[in-house]
Formats: sequence, structure tokens, C-alpha cells
Amino acid sequence: MRVKHKKWAEPLMEAHPEMMVLDPEAMKGHWQDRFEKKQPLQLEVGMGKGQFIIGMAKAHPEINFIGLEVESTVAAIALKKALPEQLPNLQLVRANGAGLETFFEDGGIDRLYLNFSDPWPKTRHEKRRLTYKSFLASYERILKPGGGLEFKTDNQGLFEYSLTSLNNYGMVFDGVWLDLHQSAENEGNVETEYEQKFSQLGQPIYKLAARFRTK
Amino acid sequence: MRVKHKKWAEPLMEAHPEMMVLDPEAMKGHWQDRFEKKQPLQLEVGMGKGQFIIGMAKAHPEINFIGLEVESTVAAIALKKALPEQLPNLQLVRANGAGLETFFEDGGIDRLYLNFSDPWPKTRHEKRRLTYKSFLASYERILKPGGGLEFKTDNQGLFEYSLTSLNNYGMVFDGVWLDLHQSAENEGNVETEYEQKFSQLGQPIYKLAARFRTK
Repeated sequence: MRVKHKKWAEPLMEAHPEMMVLDPEAMKGHWQDRFEKKQPLQLEVGMGKGQFIIGMAKAHPEINFIGLEVESTVAAIALKKALPEQLPNLQLVRANGAGLETFFEDGGIDRLYLNFSDPWPKTRHEKRRLTYKSFLASYERILKPGGGLEFKTDNQGLFEYSLTSLNNYGMVFDGVWLDLHQSAENEGNVETEYEQKFSQLGQPIYKLAARFRTK
Repeated sequence: MRVKHKKWAEPLMEAHPEMMVLDPEAMKGHWQDRFEKKQPLQLEVGMGKGQFIIGMAKAHPEINFIGLEVESTVAAIALKKALPEQLPNLQLVRANGAGLETFFEDGGIDRLYLNFSDPWPKTRHEKRRLTYKSFLASYERILKPGGGLEFKTDNQGLFEYSLTSLNNYGMVFDGVWLDLHQSAENEGNVETEYEQKFSQLGQPIYKLAARFRTK
């Protein structure tokens, strides 16, 4: 997600080291220390403006959440939104999803979320899609054995690609929804900003839940 | 597919043993003898009124095709449609898809098609769906090693189910299309009667191409 650069972004993030992590490598192996309680840890890669991860943290106080976003201004918007909520189970990170293994220890994450990732429709950009096999290999490492992943998108091409990519990687599907908002699974579904906007226009939201095969 | 019983169905099928097989067990191991040429053999399970398998046989003279249908009247309608075409590479079978291993030898089929199968939406009828694991086990036996399957449907629930079922069985996806008729893959697509009707109403047609893992 790209937005217009905001001057206040960097200063705001730097002013809130209690919630915002700008040097995630330094936290490897110590993430649980940043939360009030040691409890299961879930990660969203590409949190955008943060509506999903903040909503999840509010709905599930028994889980610790980390939201990761590469764009500084976008991460700062999420921070601005998160601060008044004072959630002891939420941490935000400004970092590139390509470096996950350098931020998180093997098996350190219980569940991973990918929401409305950039579709990168051109074939030559396949490697940038967050469901490309090199990203899956990172997720497999940082997720605990048998750990699951949830992927939502409104982009048909990205969803078709991702079904094939996750399958070809050897992941086990737990469920596929081709119109999430019309299904029973939507009960308890926390929406992203984007999801809310597009589903209101009547566009179907796709979801895939899958996990890595235990070896 | 169920249609009104037609009196002429049985007599027509019995009058055309050169094209219609009513005792497929007897043909096990000898299917190629029924065709003009010995060439790759492809099978449609649930051919309905036969538009797809007849269209495929016309489009691909280099392949032998078998269309299988359990309902007598429906199979007879397909036969009636096929007869004037005089296709030396097409055979029709009136039989239940549950008996595939008793009709075909292991590895005897090169490719298998499932088109607009009955969705059997109730959970208690899951075992009747043609993408349920027991059917997949039959397909795996009769397909040659690494042999592929193509599945088309307009039924969202059946497609969601089938993506999960084929994945969980360990099949490898070659491609997923969530709106086949809008995709490049539609080039060369042979439509079923049902597909033609529903796609004209603007409904998306789903397709999955997958193969069994070679052991």
C-alpha cells in the first residue's frame, strides 16, 4: 500500500518505542518481552493502516499480535490509530516482509495473516507476491510446526495464483471461501479497511486457510 | 442429471452396441479394441447429454474418448446426439461412476473430466460428490501415473469443497480459474450444455486442473 508521504510519520514512530518497532532484527528471540503477557503470537504481514490487526487485538486479548508494514507513512497511520486503544497485546513493526527470518526465531509464530496483499499482476513480478514460494518458505520457518496461515483478497488473479502456489508448495488447505461475506465463516471475521470498502460494493472476498505439512 | 424417462431410451442403446457400452466390466483391458485407432484415452465421468464429450471427440481426432453416464435416459439422449456424427474415437457407457475400477484397468486412462457434477450440498451427502476422496482414489487408480483431471462447475460450494478435497488428497494443482470464460484458458474450451446456458447468464464458471502425485 502506498500513500502520500507524511512529515509526521517518522517522528511519531520514533516517539513511541513502546508500541512501534523500527529495528526488528534486535527483537529476534525476545518478542514476548514486549507484551504484558506471554501468550500465543500471531503476525500480519502487510498490515496496511492497521484496522485488521487492531480489531484482532481488541477481539482476542488472549493472543499477542504483531502487525508488520513496509511503508513508513502507512505504518505510522496504523500507529496513530492504535495508540488511543492502549492494547497490551499489540506491537507494530515497520519492516520488509522479505526479512521475516531475520526478525523471528524458527517456530516463534502461531498463526500468520496475509490480507489484500499487492497482487503484482505482471508475470515478471511473481516473486514479489506474498504467496510466492520464497515467502512461503519464510513463513514455514517462523511458524510453529503445523502452524496455519490465513489469506484474504478481493483480487481474482492473486487468489487463483495463491491457491496453486500454496498447493504446489505442499500446504494443506483447511478451507476455501469464494464469497467470505456470504458464508458462515464470516462470523467473527475482522475486516480490513480495504475489505470493508470493497465488500460494500458487492465484490466477493476470497479466503484461504492453510497450514504447512508437519515433517 | 435426471430427466423424464423416455420409452425409446433402452431400445436405442441396445440397438447400438457399436457405440454404446451397457456392460463395461466386460470391456476391462480391452477398451482400445472398440476404437478405430489405438491412441490416448480420455474419460468423462458424468457426461450428461454428451455435448462436451462429443465436442471433444470432434476437436481431437488424435484422442479416444469415453463418456460415462449413470442415468439411462440421459445416456440415450447423448447417444442420439452422437450417432449422426459417426465419430470413430468416441464410445459411450451407461454406468455408475462408483464402479470405475471394475471397468478400467489401472493406469488405463490418460485424462479425466468432471463437468458440472451434482453438488450434493448437504454434508450428509458428501460421499456422493464426485470429488470426494473415495472417488479420487478410483481416479488415481485408473489414471496413468501423473495423469491429470479437469474439473469444471458453476457451483461455488462444490468448487470450494473440491479445492480442499483434492488438495487434502495430495493432488498437485496445475491451474485454478475462478471465471474461466473471461480467461485466456477459455481458448479451446469445449462447453457442456449446462455451461453454455449458465455462462450466458453471466455466471462465472470455475475450473481446476490437477494431477495425482507420482509415487
